[in-house]
Amino acid sequence: MTTLPARVTLVDVGPRDGLQNEKETVSTADKAKLVSLLQDAGLKEIEVTSFVSPKWVPQMADNTAVMAAIERRPGVRHSVLVPNMKGLEGALPTRPDEIVVFAAASEAFSQKNINCSIAESIERFAPVVASAHEAGIKVRGALSCAVGCPYQGEVTPDEVERVVRLMRDIGVDHLGVADTIGVGTPRKVQAAMERALKHYPLVEVSGHFHDTYGQALTNIYACLELGIHTFDASVAGLGGCPYAKGATGNVATEDVVFLLSGLGIDTGIDLDKLVDAGAFISGVLGRPPVSRVGKAILAKRKG
Amino acid sequence: MTTLPARVTLVDVGPRDGLQNEKETVSTADKAKLVSLLQDAGLKEIEVTSFVSPKWVPQMADNTAVMAAIERRPGVRHSVLVPNMKGLEGALPTRPDEIVVFAAASEAFSQKNINCSIAESIERFAPVVASAHEAGIKVRGALSCAVGCPYQGEVTPDEVERVVRLMRDIGVDHLGVADTIGVGTPRKVQAAMERALKHYPLVEVSGHFHDTYGQALTNIYACLELGIHTFDASVAGLGGCPYAKGATGNVATEDVVFLLSGLGIDTGIDLDKLVDAGAFISGVLGRPPVSRVGKAILAKRKG
Repeated sequence: MTTLPARVTLVDVGPRDGLQNEKETVSTADKAKLVSLLQDAGLKEIEVTSFVSPKWVPQMADNTAVMAAIERRPGVRHSVLVPNMKGLEGALPTRPDEIVVFAAASEAFSQKNINCSIAESIERFAPVVASAHEAGIKVRGALSCAVGCPYQGEVTPDEVERVVRLMRDIGVDHLGVADTIGVGTPRKVQAAMERALKHYPLVEVSGHFHDTYGQALTNIYACLELGIHTFDASVAGLGGCPYAKGATGNVATEDVVFLLSGLGIDTGIDLDKLVDAGAFISGVLGRPPVSRVGKAILAKRKG
Repeated sequence: MTTLPARVTLVDVGPRDGLQNEKETVSTADKAKLVSLLQDAGLKEIEVTSFVSPKWVPQMADNTAVMAAIERRPGVRHSVLVPNMKGLEGALPTRPDEIVVFAAASEAFSQKNINCSIAESIERFAPVVASAHEAGIKVRGALSCAVGCPYQGEVTPDEVERVVRLMRDIGVDHLGVADTIGVGTPRKVQAAMERALKHYPLVEVSGHFHDTYGQALTNIYACLELGIHTFDASVAGLGGCPYAKGATGNVATEDVVFLLSGLGIDTGIDLDKLVDAGAFISGVLGRPPVSRVGKAILAKRKG
């Protein structure tokens, strides 16, 4: 039987990737409180906000205010997503520990989503990565649609590897392989991951899985079998799926912690406090957490 | 990398295990229609009803009428659950292809749930199994609480193996290992399964996973890695969790089919027709399907 990693790092992307895809806009104070609660639960990496035009993403218009409002606990990395140089310039004064840039593995998605080719999107990010490095800031690359695309359907490992190389060539430090629409299953995900691992070391490759088709945890398990030990997740399963309204978004951090804990893998996260964080933000949004673990634990607490 | 089975058999337990745990009682006609729709979708094994006292399970009081109402397509196995000899006597005239008996791996659960020890429950089933065999009917044994119990907590592989032996000793033909409360994770599930495989061949061991904590699909994947190729599932995720009100019950058949299909494993099931069956019964119950795949596909159909 494969030996699984002894320790896994979870990056909670709920405040950014999650809340960005929720209909309701959450107040700056509630976003900051969510970040505090995640830190209380033991999260050491949190994607806080994005510096994207408020015309495109009104939910993140308060990015600077959020970065000022959050508690910057020592040992916790706070990252922000930036789409271009203008975004980086907005982000730098807020002192993020890390920035996130992105590209799609699918040409169709790149054209529809950011209106340029994959190669063009990478070219635009080259000076962003260089400037971030000059400022001493680490750069994560999010590679979206790594196993499927809402426009072109299947995405091949060759398409993934092409963008992995491009990301590496412009100096991206860490590669996050994302199943943006949640259609991945273990062998397809492993095939994509293996291409990332050809160009990045294990410690600099992570998985980002949406739970639209309920496959996210299984894909995480399949990644653990490859030794991958960093995953994005979103407390309370924050974030819907823009390609299937009413469907589920990011995998819930609570569900991932339950899996890892059951496997005897250390995450440093206190599940009960994490459920509290999920209950808090779900209350703000006026709905139950999408996390099955969150729901089950809250139901048990009620008795 | 482990070779996974080329073909998997799914047993839809929605009409019995699912509907038994729903608040609403479904009409005989709608139950029969559900069985038809499952057959249309390609299911070859369906757990139809139970012959338990209507005092305990009023949802299944129409057991004989349901067995008379369903379409008995050739090549499809229709099973019923029986708790004792009286149940078997009620079931036999309805000509089930298979009966299901049950015992818990947890002594605490056995006492609380059926008010006798595990050994006593097996003793009571011995003549039931013998009579079923005399009538030429195969017997499945459902081993509940195989990885966790709502009363005693952890359940050990030794406790599982003890009941596996008892089931084998009374002649149970097939052993279904059930994570009744959904707390299992891959390594714990594999440890329980390995004990079953010491006494039953691969083809006569199946997995039954509740998705209360979102772990069911991952556990199924972990079983596939052991070569196990028969699983229970419940269309639309029918069936809640009596130990955590408001939490999720059986793993949804749609979600399992999506996983298996993505892995290139043949199930003979048409996912779109299965989603139709799930939408039908969810409509009868007046709520959306619990299946993530069902929800996502229905959302996409709406556009």
